[in-house]
Amino acid sequence: MVVKVGIAKLGNIASGVMGELLLDERADREDMITFMATSGTKLQPEDIERVVSNMKAWGGPDFCIVVSPPNGVLPGPTQAREDLAAAGIPPCIVITDDVTTKKEQFEALKASNFGYIIMKADAMIGARREFLDPPIEMADYNGNLVKVLAITGAFRKMQVELDKVIDQVKAGKKGADLVLPKVVMTSDKAVDGEFSNPYALAKARAAYEIAQSVAGVNVKGCFMTKEWEKYIPIVSSAHEMMRQAMILCEEARDLEKAMDGVIRKPHKKTGEIVSKTALISKPE
Amino acid sequence: MVVKVGIAKLGNIASGVMGELLLDERADREDMITFMATSGTKLQPEDIERVVSNMKAWGGPDFCIVVSPPNGVLPGPTQAREDLAAAGIPPCIVITDDVTTKKEQFEALKASNFGYIIMKADAMIGARREFLDPPIEMADYNGNLVKVLAITGAFRKMQVELDKVIDQVKAGKKGADLVLPKVVMTSDKAVDGEFSNPYALAKARAAYEIAQSVAGVNVKGCFMTKEWEKYIPIVSSAHEMMRQAMILCEEARDLEKAMDGVIRKPHKKTGEIVSKTALISKPE
Amino acid sequence: MVVKVGIAKLGNIASGVMGELLLDERADREDMITFMATSGTKLQPEDIERVVSNMKAWGGPDFCIVVSPPNGVLPGPTQAREDLAAAGIPPCIVITDDVTTKKEQFEALKASNFGYIIMKADAMIGARREFLDPPIEMADYNGNLVKVLAITGAFRKMQVELDKVIDQVKAGKKGADLVLPKVVMTSDKAVDGEFSNPYALAKARAAYEIAQSVAGVNVKGCFMTKEWEKYIPIVSSAHEMMRQAMILCEEARDLEKAMDGVIRKPHKKTGEIVSKTALISKPE
Amino acid sequence: MVVKVGIAKLGNIASGVMGELLLDERADREDMITFMATSGTKLQPEDIERVVSNMKAWGGPDFCIVVSPPNGVLPGPTQAREDLAAAGIPPCIVITDDVTTKKEQFEALKASNFGYIIMKADAMIGARREFLDPPIEMADYNGNLVKVLAITGAFRKMQVELDKVIDQVKAGKKGADLVLPKVVMTSDKAVDGEFSNPYALAKARAAYEIAQSVAGVNVKGCFMTKEWEKYIPIVSSAHEMMRQAMILCEEARDLEKAMDGVIRKPHKKTGEIVSKTALISKPE
Amino acid sequence: MVVKVGIAKLGNIASGVMGELLLDERADREDMITFMATSGTKLQPEDIERVVSNMKAWGGPDFCIVVSPPNGVLPGPTQAREDLAAAGIPPCIVITDDVTTKKEQFEALKASNFGYIIMKADAMIGARREFLDPPIEMADYNGNLVKVLAITGAFRKMQVELDKVIDQVKAGKKGADLVLPKVVMTSDKAVDGEFSNPYALAKARAAYEIAQSVAGVNVKGCFMTKEWEKYIPIVSSAHEMMRQAMILCEEARDLEKAMDGVIRKPHKKTGEIVSKTALISKPE
Amino acid sequence: MVVKVGIAKLGNIASGVMGELLLDERADREDMITFMATSGTKLQPEDIERVVSNMKAWGGPDFCIVVSPPNGVLPGPTQAREDLAAAGIPPCIVITDDVTTKKEQFEALKASNFGYIIMKADAMIGARREFLDPPIEMADYNGNLVKVLAITGAFRKMQVELDKVIDQVKAGKKGADLVLPKVVMTSDKAVDGEFSNPYALAKARAAYEIAQSVAGVNVKGCFMTKEWEKYIPIVSSAHEMMRQAMILCEEARDLEKAMDGVIRKPHKKTGEIVSKTALISKPE
Repeated sequence: MVVKVGIAKLGNIASGVMGELLLDERADREDMITFMATSGTKLQPEDIERVVSNMKAWGGPDFCIVVSPPNGVLPGPTQAREDLAAAGIPPCIVITDDVTTKKEQFEALKASNFGYIIMKADAMIGARREFLDPPIEMADYNGNLVKVLAITGAFRKMQVELDKVIDQVKAGKKGADLVLPKVVMTSDKAVDGEFSNPYALAKARAAYEIAQSVAGVNVKGCFMTKEWEKYIPIVSSAHEMMRQAMILCEEARDLEKAMDGVIRKPHKKTGEIVSKTALISKPE
Repeated sequence: MVVKVGIAKLGNIASGVMGELLLDERADREDMITFMATSGTKLQPEDIERVVSNMKAWGGPDFCIVVSPPNGVLPGPTQAREDLAAAGIPPCIVITDDVTTKKEQFEALKASNFGYIIMKADAMIGARREFLDPPIEMADYNGNLVKVLAITGAFRKMQVELDKVIDQVKAGKKGADLVLPKVVMTSDKAVDGEFSNPYALAKARAAYEIAQSVAGVNVKGCFMTKEWEKYIPIVSSAHEMMRQAMILCEEARDLEKAMDGVIRKPHKKTGEIVSKTALISKPE
Repeated sequence: MVVKVGIAKLGNIASGVMGELLLDERADREDMITFMATSGTKLQPEDIERVVSNMKAWGGPDFCIVVSPPNGVLPGPTQAREDLAAAGIPPCIVITDDVTTKKEQFEALKASNFGYIIMKADAMIGARREFLDPPIEMADYNGNLVKVLAITGAFRKMQVELDKVIDQVKAGKKGADLVLPKVVMTSDKAVDGEFSNPYALAKARAAYEIAQSVAGVNVKGCFMTKEWEKYIPIVSSAHEMMRQAMILCEEARDLEKAMDGVIRKPHKKTGEIVSKTALISKPE
Repeated sequence: MVVKVGIAKLGNIASGVMGELLLDERADREDMITFMATSGTKLQPEDIERVVSNMKAWGGPDFCIVVSPPNGVLPGPTQAREDLAAAGIPPCIVITDDVTTKKEQFEALKASNFGYIIMKADAMIGARREFLDPPIEMADYNGNLVKVLAITGAFRKMQVELDKVIDQVKAGKKGADLVLPKVVMTSDKAVDGEFSNPYALAKARAAYEIAQSVAGVNVKGCFMTKEWEKYIPIVSSAHEMMRQAMILCEEARDLEKAMDGVIRKPHKKTGEIVSKTALISKPE
Repeated sequence: MVVKVGIAKLGNIASGVMGELLLDERADREDMITFMATSGTKLQPEDIERVVSNMKAWGGPDFCIVVSPPNGVLPGPTQAREDLAAAGIPPCIVITDDVTTKKEQFEALKASNFGYIIMKADAMIGARREFLDPPIEMADYNGNLVKVLAITGAFRKMQVELDKVIDQVKAGKKGADLVLPKVVMTSDKAVDGEFSNPYALAKARAAYEIAQSVAGVNVKGCFMTKEWEKYIPIVSSAHEMMRQAMILCEEARDLEKAMDGVIRKPHKKTGEIVSKTALISKPE
Repeated sequence: MVVKVGIAKLGNIASGVMGELLLDERADREDMITFMATSGTKLQPEDIERVVSNMKAWGGPDFCIVVSPPNGVLPGPTQAREDLAAAGIPPCIVITDDVTTKKEQFEALKASNFGYIIMKADAMIGARREFLDPPIEMADYNGNLVKVLAITGAFRKMQVELDKVIDQVKAGKKGADLVLPKVVMTSDKAVDGEFSNPYALAKARAAYEIAQSVAGVNVKGCFMTKEWEKYIPIVSSAHEMMRQAMILCEEARDLEKAMDGVIRKPHKKTGEIVSKTALISKPE
């Protein structure tokens, strides 16, 4: 059996950039296929519509992942979820970042039938024209953020949650019977079980905390400060924070390497996850 | 006028992961829209077909970008280009990495009507199951690679080439009249004009050279070495090389920061590129 | 005229550890003297009493600084302020850290006649026996914190506020006529005007933000988590955060050094503050 | 029984800054209390007098610690010791730094009835107005020095020596019967038994040696060089040496973390010292 | 028996700089002596002649090592080998770097009776007057290169090969009966068996790969680029690459230190090689 | 005119390893030639004799450099100088390290007719069999030391002193008329005039001070400590100190790079020294 996973990408967050790759890292998995429909960067109603229709045209995914930034409770992403549901493409899992100012909408999401994975460290970028040029500052920030989400374990937890749903489909469950993830990815959740060395875990946890607090600084710099002389230092400092979170992750990984304790859990072709620690060994 | 840019993503390379974002970093550009069609990770004929048909369904991009790894001269990507051409969706620009063992096919590509940007530093990953677990080693490598391509200037050069085509469309050119990029992205090409400090340029150039030589090591580890006790250290060393290239890039950027010399060239809403150097200043 | 400054130290915070030294760094200032009365680590009523009586015995300071951790709104520090006031030793300036869970008491402090400097980055330590051994983890944390408060500029701002009061006394003001500082030391306040290089400022601001968020993590680890297997990683991660804030400060200072832009403002013997930037120069 | 420890702080050295905290790190020890009397920064006869009278007023400490920089053999500190003795407040332990030019006085100290701990790495600061501004250069240097004294083990050895005296008091000994520490804190002494990893010990030992040689450079810069163009680079280099000693300590601690080998020895409430190594464990 | 080893140094490469020291590191070995004859930096025919005649005058080494840069196949070094052979001073081992553009000559060397050790990472320096000042850039580069060749294991392998020949002489073999090394020092060869930690090995292997690719960049900068504005950044980037290879080696060694796994193999006075790993242990 | 410089190398110190290269870095200088005679590592009387006779055989150098470790006042080196003088090969310049325990002999050297350059930072290695394996620990230490002597400016000062003598010969002076260097290379001497950035100078000065203090630690570890459990940590810490001095030098050079202020002074073919600072410029 081959599970069909639809990925609707509405705008970009780091968690989405890597989403597809996380499920099939060497493109040799035989138990699943993915199809991605993307909205482009604008998130206009017609973009959402096109995503939905492309997803339908693909012909019935077993379940659907909606990746939606800057936060998954804005009108666009919410509409997309509703439309996918209306189009008969549930069940649907929302992957989003967190914005603390939108508590009500998050409560609504949590209360809905949708699954969700709220990536608290997938922080909003410092989107100010005076600061964010695309090919360098933006890409560099994304590189740092991808590394943080990877090394802290947040991506692993996300992958595991999605693999659990795939496994249910393979076991014959479908539609409303699927148990969907309901996860707020906190620092404690992200790092749990990912490290051989407790100081590596502490450093990764620290990195996640820092990354998580970047969003607030960027919100201040992007939405709450008017004068460019003032907001440029603010968004600059937010990017420095993310860079430092990345450096902490490097330190964490170095500690793991120092005791040959890096934990690896690759997919087999069958989709099964195997595990190993010593670098020169076969996963089992 | 709004230029329509189709992006066909066949598999994943770091240059592709960032492609869309590079053209419209704050999602506020009013002179263009993008549509991305992705093949999933398998690159089967039906995947290619779906990409082509989705692209057609979108209704006529002004031009098309085909991002194709692991190298753009394998049967899949070649087929996609031919099909897009046959479907009447030229002109088409291929963005690919480089594999020195396929010289003939690259010659064919260069001789074709397609535009191309060959990203020599966008090196193949160490795709061995014993080494590459998806949520950490793979994502971390991609994070490093994105940072290298960003900070060295390779992404900027790619963006500039693509913006040039968009500008031609805006100026009324179309179809076969468009002059497409024919670029091999070498270290000298990537770093040219990107740095205020000559040592920063030298470090970035060094990083690009290192990244470029990663591919050969991974080819050795993935295709030319059979025993896992032997190929694990080889692919591990390739990833350490990329990590060190990333660190060199950090050093380069630190030198730029030290003289407040970071060059930024963001897009305006109109798509125009503006420029600035002093951090606390407005781009002009 | 020689201004008499009384310092009542109730327990320890990093801002207090350096307090006296900040006002007379080379012990050659002729316009002021300080007297410190300390409570010891216990903060019992008799300790507070002794501080007050020693301060009185010293014979009438012109004004008084009360340094009080873990936060200046607990019964002990509050009592000390009241007692000093009752003993006729106003005016009094409270230097304290911030604990967001005690909003009411902070409001009361702000509404009082006391001056205050709330050092938001002077974060509570990870005071768990399994983690905090005195001669190493504790002292090391304090070393990091002192460096952060120093390099970000927070200590300078505190010193400047205190010097302003000294200057008023020298100008003949006294008692209730003295204008006391009412300062919440935020990241923007701390770094303002301290750096020649804007990236150094951004890094320092980032360091301050990180240091500030340490308190919340330590509160969680010390008061809101019961199991030692769980709280040890939490307080460990808080100390890693502070260490990383320190590293960011080092980076900031390196950038300043790189352009020979470190700003220095030493005291003259007269208490006057002079200023210089180029390392090999005389302050003016 | 509650042991009463008087601390007379005459001026400031890093060993003194942390003194009180080292004995009761979480302020929960029930077997001892401390009282600190400080001289202020000037060290005038009346300051010494006040320290002594405050100490007497506190009512008879069981023993007394005199912390005295820049070195404990200058007239002021010597007077204080004599006065305390005359006031019937022996026994007395002197904690001081080392100045090699005062050999005779040190011999006198060693020959006296006083206990002593000579902290050879607690090096004199670069006290030149053109260089040492209080809130940054001075505080930053102290932060580095505190970290060096902490991580090398020098503070632990100092604490252990003081705890030994407290234990004697608890066991019923008093006055002249107390065996006081007679310790010159060399690099070998400081690092002994503090590290699980022998390279960490070597790095810490190296850091201590470097810190120890800072004093000579600062003596040259502060007392033996007249031209500011010449002494500024000298004292600057002394501070760079201390910073590098700090960095070596960080490396040492990283090695300990890498094998989960950090040794911790916290106090229990009873004052008993317990010990642990694995981070996630209870001390025993 | 005392083995006599002649070393003819024709110009300088890093492998030669350390050659003599590698065989008798503490100058206490009783089973061998060395004599070095050097050509000076010019490599003129009379220089070669003098080397040969001095070597003859020394009176018959048991075997001879010819260290010859920039590559051992240029006329000078080739002549020296021939002359030494003609002078009856075989057997002779050539130690040289690699220049890929001289394939034929290398084939000739490999086919000859000479032994050889081709140090692929002993890369040509960036010998441009605008860049390479002798006491700093040149010496610094050599320092980096020596560190890379040391820590990767390349020097150990070279030493082992030479010790094997010495051992044959001690066992009574001589002249044409000696089996000489025929070694191309690749990254895999250099690092084999040198590390306790597999990540240290991977990092060292990466460093060797980077060092090896430096030569090509310097060849481009020194021989294939005419404009100084262009070749200065090229040779600068080559030196940055070597520096980064050095930093990777430091990281590798840190990992080894972190598990107390540094492997040491000193010579005894008898020339026997003994071995140890734990730092605080005796070699056996 | 071509000046003939004889170099007699008696054993090895880092200053000697680089000596020849410093005078003719690209082997293209037309105004001088060098001839090196080496003693091997043993320094036996017959080795000294051979050096002297080879030097004579070369036919009259204009002057002679005797490089002699571990210190230039031991019987061997002293004999060599006397013999060279007796053989009519003055004038002679001694390059040596410093050993403070041999004050008398150094006074004798200073009082003699010989020139001298005493390299205080060229510190004795940790020559203990349990620690110093030749191809790694020894070579790595030398790499660090070469970098320190290079980047601090000590090598430049040595080269300048030697070039001055060459210039005198070119100007027609000879024999006893030559003014020979009489230099003790202190930290202040080494760094003088080498840096554009005053913090770089301070860091380099700090590095030199640290390197200089390594010798004392190694003397303690090699000659004054008997138990291997004790001397291994001591010599290990000495090597860590030298490594840290190297790291400080890297920091110094980074500061210079950050302001494009690296000073370069290459030789022209005529031997003339030219100078430049901006990287992309021609020396003048």
